[in-house]
Amino acid sequence: MKQIVRTLAFAFAAVASLVACNVTVAQSDWLPSWNDGAVKQAISKFVQATTDPKNAQFVPPDQRIATFDQDGTLWVEHPIYTQLLYCLDRVPAVAKQKPELAGVEPFKTVLSGHREAIANLSMDDLLKIVAATLTGMTVEQFQNEVKNWLASAKDPRWKRSFTELTYLPMQELLRYLRANGYKTYIVTGGGQDFVRVYSQQVYGIPPEQVVGSEGAAKYGYDKSGQPILIKEPKLLLNDDHAGKPEGIHLMIGRRPYAAVGNSIGDRQMLEYTHAGDGLRLAMIVLHDDVKREYSYGPAQGLPDTKLGTFTQALYDEAKKNGWIVVSMKDDWKQIFSFKQ
Amino acid sequence: MKQIVRTLAFAFAAVASLVACNVTVAQSDWLPSWNDGAVKQAISKFVQATTDPKNAQFVPPDQRIATFDQDGTLWVEHPIYTQLLYCLDRVPAVAKQKPELAGVEPFKTVLSGHREAIANLSMDDLLKIVAATLTGMTVEQFQNEVKNWLASAKDPRWKRSFTELTYLPMQELLRYLRANGYKTYIVTGGGQDFVRVYSQQVYGIPPEQVVGSEGAAKYGYDKSGQPILIKEPKLLLNDDHAGKPEGIHLMIGRRPYAAVGNSIGDRQMLEYTHAGDGLRLAMIVLHDDVKREYSYGPAQGLPDTKLGTFTQALYDEAKKNGWIVVSMKDDWKQIFSFKQ
Repeated sequence: MKQIVRTLAFAFAAVASLVACNVTVAQSDWLPSWNDGAVKQAISKFVQATTDPKNAQFVPPDQRIATFDQDGTLWVEHPIYTQLLYCLDRVPAVAKQKPELAGVEPFKTVLSGHREAIANLSMDDLLKIVAATLTGMTVEQFQNEVKNWLASAKDPRWKRSFTELTYLPMQELLRYLRANGYKTYIVTGGGQDFVRVYSQQVYGIPPEQVVGSEGAAKYGYDKSGQPILIKEPKLLLNDDHAGKPEGIHLMIGRRPYAAVGNSIGDRQMLEYTHAGDGLRLAMIVLHDDVKREYSYGPAQGLPDTKLGTFTQALYDEAKKNGWIVVSMKDDWKQIFSFKQ
Repeated sequence: MKQIVRTLAFAFAAVASLVACNVTVAQSDWLPSWNDGAVKQAISKFVQATTDPKNAQFVPPDQRIATFDQDGTLWVEHPIYTQLLYCLDRVPAVAKQKPELAGVEPFKTVLSGHREAIANLSMDDLLKIVAATLTGMTVEQFQNEVKNWLASAKDPRWKRSFTELTYLPMQELLRYLRANGYKTYIVTGGGQDFVRVYSQQVYGIPPEQVVGSEGAAKYGYDKSGQPILIKEPKLLLNDDHAGKPEGIHLMIGRRPYAAVGNSIGDRQMLEYTHAGDGLRLAMIVLHDDVKREYSYGPAQGLPDTKLGTFTQALYDEAKKNGWIVVSMKDDWKQIFSFKQ
C-alpha cells in the first residue's frame, strides 16, 4: 500500500510537471471562438500535419516558428494605434520636463487638447511627438512609464484597458500553436520596447520573442556611475513591409512556418513564410465587422480608412497564393474575451 | 492490480516527459571538468541561490538569462579568429566568381598563399576580405558555405575541426545553467549569421539565441520571382564593447543574471550584468595555460598578443567588483572533450 501511495504521489508530481512544461494535452477544441468552416479546418490541418512524425509535412520542434503582427492582428488598431495614443498622452509630462517644448508645434497643439487639430497633425508632426516621447530616458524608465499608462488608459469605444482589446480567437490560436511546440513571436511595425512591456502578460509571449521597429539604445553611465541604456532617436530597424522578413532574419534567424497579419505592411512576411518548403500557414485578417469591431479595407469594397490598409490587390494575391483570408464577421464567433 | 499497472505506466510516461522537457534532475556534479575551489563553489552557489524559491536571491524562471561570449570564452580564438580563417579560405571561390578581384589587393596577396604577407595584412585589408566573403549571397547560400567549410577545415595545432575546439568546462556550465532553467545565449563580436550555423549542434543554443555583429539582409526576389534575403555590406550591429549590452537589449530585452567573457570586448557586458539587482554572476576567463591552450593577457604579466586582449586594468576591475576570474590553468581539470 505504501508503495502504491508513493507511486501515486510520484505520478501526481509528474502530471504537475507535464502541465508546467506545456506538453501537448488532449483537448477537444483549441479554437472554440472560431466558427466551424474552411478557415478553422485549414488551421487544424496545418497543426496536425506539421506535428505528426508520420506525416510527410512534419516539422521538427526546433523549427516550429510562428510570427504574428500585432496592431489589427492580435488587438484593435482603430481609430488610431495604441502606441500613438500613448505618445500623445505623454506630451504634458515631457513638456513639464522640457518647458521649451510647450510653445512649439506640434507640442502646442497637443497641449491645447483641441481634438480636431490633433487629428489633423501631419506625419512629420507625429514623428516629432514620437521621438520626444519614446527617447531620451533609460530603458527601465520607459518600461515603467508604459506600465503606468496601460494601468489607467482606456479605449474610447469600449471603455476598457487596451490590453483587454485583444482578439480572443487569436489568443486561442497562440495557445494552440504553443501547445503543439510552436514558438510564437510578435513581429510588429510598432515599437519593440513598447510591446515588450506587456507581451508576456497579455499574450504569453516573452520580451525576447517580440520583434518590432526599434531605436538604438546607447550604453553609458548615470551620475552615480551606474551603467544605463538610454533610448536614442536613431532608428535601427523599421519592422514593416520588407522590414518584417529582414527583422525576422535578424532576430530569429529562420523562416517561420506560420505567419499571420492583416495589412499591406504584412505582405512580405506572408510571402516569405509561404514561399518556404513544405506546408506553411499564411493568414490575413479582414476587418469586415463594423458591428462588433471595425470595417476597413479597401479590399472587397470596405471603407479605405488609410490605417491598417488591406488593398484589393493584396486580397487577390492572398486568394491566388493560397494564403488564408480570415473574415472577422464570418470566421469569429466572438471577438473579445468580454461580452459585447 | 490493473489500476496499479496503469498508474505505473502513467508514471513511466510522465518520467519520460520530465526528461524530455529538461526539468532539473538531481546529478551529483554538473561541473566535473572544473577543479574544486572558490570558482566552482561560486558558480554552484549562484545557481542554487537563484533557483531556490526559499532563497532571497531567487530569480523567476522567465528572467533567468545567461550570456556567453564565444571567441576565447566558449572556444579557441588563437592564433586567429575562426571566422577570419573562413573568410581567407573563401577568397579563391569569390575570385572565381568575380575574376576582377584576383589582380587587386588584398585578394592578390591572399591568393598568392604567401603566409607571412597574409599575416601582415592591415585591418583595412581584412575588412575588404570580410565584406567580399560574407556578403552578396542569400542567407541560405551563406549557411551552406559555412556548413561545408566547417565539415572539412582543421585547426593547424590540434588537427581537429574547429567545432571540436570548444572548452569542455564551458559546455558543462551551459548544460548546468540550462538544467536549472536558464536560457543560454551567445553574445559575440563575431558574425551572428556565422555562429548561428553551428550553435545548436555545438553548444545546444538555437539560432535565435545567438546575438552577434550583424550586417543587414535585404529582402528581394531571385530571377524566378522567389523571395530572398541577400546579405549586404552594411553593419547593423557591432556587438563588441558597449555594443554587447546594446545588442542584449535589442535582441533579448532584459538584463542577464549571468555573463561570461574573456577580454576587453566583454567588459561592458560584465559590468551591465553585474550592476543588476540581486545576485549576479560575472565571469572572465584568463588564458594562462600555454601548455594545454594559449597564454595571453597582458594581465598578470602574460604576453600581449593583441588578440583577445585582457588588460591588467580589466583584471583589477574584475577583482575589485567581485567578478570571478577563471584561470584556465588552475580552475580547469580538462580543456577539451578530447584527450591531450
